[in-house]
Amino acid sequence: MSTLISSVDYLPGISIDCVIFGFHDNQLKILLLNFKSTDWLAVPGGFIKESENLEEAAQRILEERTGLTNIYLEQFHVFGDRNRRDNEVMKSAMAAGGNIIGPDHFLMRRFISIGFYALIDFTKATPTPDIHSDTCEWYDIKEIPTLIYDHSLMVSKALETLRFFLDEKLIGFNLLPEVFTMNDLQNLYETILDKKLLRTNFQRKMLSLGILERLDKKMTGAANKAPYLYRFTGK
Amino acid sequence: MSTLISSVDYLPGISIDCVIFGFHDNQLKILLLNFKSTDWLAVPGGFIKESENLEEAAQRILEERTGLTNIYLEQFHVFGDRNRRDNEVMKSAMAAGGNIIGPDHFLMRRFISIGFYALIDFTKATPTPDIHSDTCEWYDIKEIPTLIYDHSLMVSKALETLRFFLDEKLIGFNLLPEVFTMNDLQNLYETILDKKLLRTNFQRKMLSLGILERLDKKMTGAANKAPYLYRFTGK
Repeated sequence: MSTLISSVDYLPGISIDCVIFGFHDNQLKILLLNFKSTDWLAVPGGFIKESENLEEAAQRILEERTGLTNIYLEQFHVFGDRNRRDNEVMKSAMAAGGNIIGPDHFLMRRFISIGFYALIDFTKATPTPDIHSDTCEWYDIKEIPTLIYDHSLMVSKALETLRFFLDEKLIGFNLLPEVFTMNDLQNLYETILDKKLLRTNFQRKMLSLGILERLDKKMTGAANKAPYLYRFTGK
Repeated sequence: MSTLISSVDYLPGISIDCVIFGFHDNQLKILLLNFKSTDWLAVPGGFIKESENLEEAAQRILEERTGLTNIYLEQFHVFGDRNRRDNEVMKSAMAAGGNIIGPDHFLMRRFISIGFYALIDFTKATPTPDIHSDTCEWYDIKEIPTLIYDHSLMVSKALETLRFFLDEKLIGFNLLPEVFTMNDLQNLYETILDKKLLRTNFQRKMLSLGILERLDKKMTGAANKAPYLYRFTGK
C-alpha cells in the first residue's frame, strides 16, 4: 500500500491545481497526469502546508511535476462548487492505486481548489508522475481529452486568462532567448492565441507596449534583408 | 455573550471577504465594518456553508450587509499568506464583543480568504453591521483609513480589478438608468478611474465596444442641443 497523504500535513479542504502550459517551436501543450490504472486525466495538483504561502505551495507542486524552480506562476480562479468533485471517482482512483479510503477520509471531504497557471518551455521540464499517477505527459492544447471533475473548465479558464494577459505577462514567462526577431515574437503570439495576426498591426502593437528595445542589425552579407533583433527592456 | 460562529456550520479555514464599491452621483465609496469597541475597520466577510457554492456564500454575505439581492459579484483574488491575520487582533476584537476565544478556536486557525467585489448604487443599500461590529458604513474611496489584516491590500487589488475590467463588466453592474447620455457614462468612468477623460476619445472608445445603442433625440424646444440618449444593447 502506497503512502497516502493525511490531513495532518496540510490545510483541510483546500487544494491547488496547476494548469501548466508548455510552449516550444510553435507548439502549445499542457501537462496532464493519468491516475493509476484508470483513464482519468487531471491537471497536477496538491495541498498547502501550514508553513507555506499559497504561491510557495504552487511552486512546490510545479517543481515536483517538472523539476523546474523559480517559474512565474499566477493564480487565476478559485473552483469551489459544492459538487465539483465526484467522490466515487476519487475513491476508485485511490483504490486503483492500492489505497482504500473510507467516507470520512480527508480526501472525501469537499475541496475548494485554487487554480494557478504557468507557461514554460516544455523542452526544459522533466515531467514526473505523482504518487496517484502512472504518467505525467504533455498533451497538445488542441487535442485535450475530457478531464476529471471540473478540470476541463480549469484548463479553459486558464487558457482564457493566459491569452487575455499575454501582453502583460510576456516578460515574466521568459520564453524567448535574450535577443529575438519580431517574427519569433509573432510566432509565440500566434501559437498561444491560436490565430494568424497581421504582421504590420502586430509589430505596431508590440512596439507601442514599450517593452521592446530594438538592437542594431547584425551586419551580414545580406544586411538589408537581416531582420531587426529585439530584447525586452529592463532585462 | 453574543452568539459566536462555530466550525460546525462552515467549511474550515476558508473565508470570503467582500469589497463592496458603491457608486452614485460622481462618488465612489466602499463599505466598511467597525469591530465592536475598537478602531479596527474591515471589509465585510463571512464563511461558506457546506450547502453553498462560493458565489452563493458571497451573495448571502452581501445581502446580510446591504439588504440587496441578485447583485453582480465576482471573485478577484485569493489571500492566503501564512501570516496574513494577526490573531491577537482577532482575539481582542472578539473579547471587545463579549466573546472570549481560546487558542484552539476555529477563528484562531489559519484562514484563506477569497476576495469578491461588487459595484452597487449606494443609495439603494441598507448598511447593516454584523455580530462583531458596531457600525457598517460607506467610506469615500479617497479617504480610506488603514484596515485590519491584509484588508487594505484587498481593497487596492479589488479597485485595480474594477478599473481593469470596467468595459466588460459595465452592463452587469447595472448602475445607470435604462437610458442615459454619453455624459452620464463618462461621469461614471471618470469617478471610478479617478481621472478626467477626453470627451471625443471616450465617445469613440465606448461606441467601438459595441454595447451601446443610440436612440432618437428627444424632441424638445432646443432639439439641436439635446444630447443623444443611449441604452445598452441586449437589455
